[in-house]
Amino acid sequence: MYRLRSKIWLEDRGKIFGDGPCELLEKVDRMGSLRQAAVDMKMSYRQAWDLIRMLEENLGFPLMERQAGGSQGGGSNLTREGRALMLRYRDFRRDADKVLEELFEQHFGDSPGTTGD
Amino acid sequence: MYRLRSKIWLEDRGKIFGDGPCELLEKVDRMGSLRQAAVDMKMSYRQAWDLIRMLEENLGFPLMERQAGGSQGGGSNLTREGRALMLRYRDFRRDADKVLEELFEQHFGDSPGTTGD
Repeated sequence: MYRLRSKIWLEDRGKIFGDGPCELLEKVDRMGSLRQAAVDMKMSYRQAWDLIRMLEENLGFPLMERQAGGSQGGGSNLTREGRALMLRYRDFRRDADKVLEELFEQHFGDSPGTTGD
Repeated sequence: MYRLRSKIWLEDRGKIFGDGPCELLEKVDRMGSLRQAAVDMKMSYRQAWDLIRMLEENLGFPLMERQAGGSQGGGSNLTREGRALMLRYRDFRRDADKVLEELFEQHFGDSPGTTGD
């Protein structure tokens, strides 16, 4: 049985945003920590941090703000613009999945492989 | 200025088809030669050949038939099913690009980065 898979991302000179960054920001937002979000993504903290810095540089605005100190060694929260971008991309991605599945059904729905026969 | 990029492919247990294989089959169809098509894709002949064999195994039908002999050492043509899959996928991909661009415009069209401001 065929399944449709897709990867989507935004670019200008470099990569700006996409499925992976959106997932990372969602986890930071939920966990309040880039370190924990990175572990959950099976990335090193360094990789996650480098990704965020690269995106921020290409986007021209900060995605995260660090909260210093405290017994837990501080945490990370999304900036207003970071959260707005995450939510916007997530809505876009959800709609994209829906229309891609519809198109896939239109074009491949009568194939033996896609009907479970 | 943001641009939308996407990769799409079909899977069941393994990869079945996608943007790269479609481009390779288009070139084989035009050039009548897997060897020339591979060069044009900047792949080695071996890579192209392995890709075709893997796809054929996953799909359960042949994509290409080889024409033996002749002064040029023979050539490669698409099978009827191979050409049908290529054309079907190409139509699907064209429609997918169109709806993804429309959705992108809907969701990101008012962002400074996407309007050229």
